[in-house]
Order: sequence, then C-alpha cells, then structure tokens
Amino acid sequence: MKHKSFGNMQCPIARSLERVGEWWSILILRDAFNGLKRFDEFQTNLGIAPAMLTRRLKALVDAGLLEKHRYSEHPPRDEYLLTPRGRDFQPVLIALMAWGNAHFTPEGKSVIVVDTRTGREAEPVMVDRASGLPLSDPVFRKMPGPAADERTRRRHGGRPATREQRQ
Amino acid sequence: MKHKSFGNMQCPIARSLERVGEWWSILILRDAFNGLKRFDEFQTNLGIAPAMLTRRLKALVDAGLLEKHRYSEHPPRDEYLLTPRGRDFQPVLIALMAWGNAHFTPEGKSVIVVDTRTGREAEPVMVDRASGLPLSDPVFRKMPGPAADERTRRRHGGRPATREQRQ
Repeated sequence: MKHKSFGNMQCPIARSLERVGEWWSILILRDAFNGLKRFDEFQTNLGIAPAMLTRRLKALVDAGLLEKHRYSEHPPRDEYLLTPRGRDFQPVLIALMAWGNAHFTPEGKSVIVVDTRTGREAEPVMVDRASGLPLSDPVFRKMPGPAADERTRRRHGGRPATREQRQ
Repeated sequence: MKHKSFGNMQCPIARSLERVGEWWSILILRDAFNGLKRFDEFQTNLGIAPAMLTRRLKALVDAGLLEKHRYSEHPPRDEYLLTPRGRDFQPVLIALMAWGNAHFTPEGKSVIVVDTRTGREAEPVMVDRASGLPLSDPVFRKMPGPAADERTRRRHGGRPATREQRQ
C-alpha cells in the first residue's frame, strides 16, 4: 500500500516523513549508523525480503540519504554509505531510542548511549543551541517561518513574537 | 498492508516505531502538540479518511500516547489528549522538524521554533544532559545496556567501556 503523499504539505515534519518513507527505511538508516554497508549485511540483520530491501535502498539513495559506492567490479558489488543528509538524521534516531528506552523496556534497557570518557550513560535531551534550554520549556513556541503560506500562518498563530511584543 | 511487527526486537528504535505505527500517527501527534483535540479537527487538518482516523486514534490510545476524554454526554463526544508518554514524544517531532527544515525547504522555512523571550529562532540540538555535548560527538557510542541479549551484545561490541578501560 502506498500512503498518501505528504510532500505537498508545508510542514517540515510531513516532508521528513515523506523522505524516510517507511519504517524499514528508518531501520536501514539505524543499521548504517551501526556501520553496516552491504546488501547482505542489511538483509541478514533485518530479516527483510530482498525485493523490499532493494526498493528501500533505492528510495534512500534517490532521497539523498545514502550513496551507492561500487567496491568491487568483478563481481559487481555496491555498498551503501551515509551522505551528510543521512548523517543529519541521527538526532531522529536518538530521539526514537530515548523514547523507546523510557517507555517500552519493561525488562531494562538493551541499547544505550555511553560517554566513552567516563563509561556513564548519556541522557539525550533536545535543547536550543544558543540558550541551552530544553525545547520542552514553555518559552519556546512553534511559529510560522518566512516561507509560511496563509494556511500555515493561521495554524501557528500569526507572526513570530518580537522582544517588544513580549515585554 | 500491515508491516512486519518490530515489537519482538530488542532495539528501542524498533519498539518506538512499532508503537507510533504509521506516518498518520506521527502527524496526529504533531497536531495534538499544536492543540488539536477533537475528531473533526484532526480530520479537517489532515484530510484523512474518517475510518483511517478512527483506527489511528484507537491505536494511539491503546499504546498509551493519547487518552480519550468525554467532554459531552448529549450528544456523546470525546476529545483526545496527550498523555505523559505522548508528551515525551516531542523530541522526535522536533528532530524531524529540524531535519526537514535543514534539507527539504528550498523555498525557505515555513515552521520554526522561536524563543518567545527574544523572538530568535531556536536551533534544536540533541545533547547529553550532564556534559552538554552534542550526541554526534565521537566520545559517544551506542553500547549494549544491562538487559541486552547475546545478539544485541554482538551487534554493539561487547560491554560498555569503563573509565579504566579508556585511560
């Protein structure tokens, strides 16, 4: 089943979902971050049907998240490497991991992120780079950006607040 | 089409994907964060078929991300509110938004997060709470956690490093 295309929506979340396409794509990206590169490595690890894996890899290459690199000519063999756009997907994977670890691991955590300098488990939190505040803080609000159309503007309540408006 | 169940995998990313279920679910959660509560609000905003919306809302309630609250008895009407588990999903949405804004908005950004104290656009970054370092820093590494089985241990290279091992 093809889902409805979200690509014509202005929302950046919808556009991201359109590009990663399916759960399989996210698990393939996860495996690529874990160092897997070759078709048979992905296939063995995911237990995915070869035809489905071929389709998902092609979609990830077409969307600019992976690039195909021929590592052998005889026989012809390709490996799949993360592009800069694919590498930028890491925070989504870490956010999914943190949420899964917090809510769906009744038996304890199986995968964690560790600070290798100390051996301590990292606690992932999404912050604003400039202020260091968590983005869950009520000072942050979604707002229409410069390219927002009328519908997006209506949905997110007009113009960004300015310092003058808030004080 | 039902996708293969990921719920039996140990990976917390796979478990998270299992719970949010489909792209529609993520867009419904996005809308809930934007303040939408009622069936017809979601339906109008998403342009989703009613039967599909009914299924996705039920799945989100069953997974403990939304709770149903009857706000009118005559006629019977329910609204859908984010639970604490649903609220904890926010970093995933922000990570998807940031990635979409960085890579799929050739015409400029339509939705941004703003620090309402200053009017400045926030720059979402995933950091470790204790050290404040971005989790993309090479000092961080995925490791098997205390509940890892043999397969997970193999995949993530043995035990977490300790301070002694690294120094």
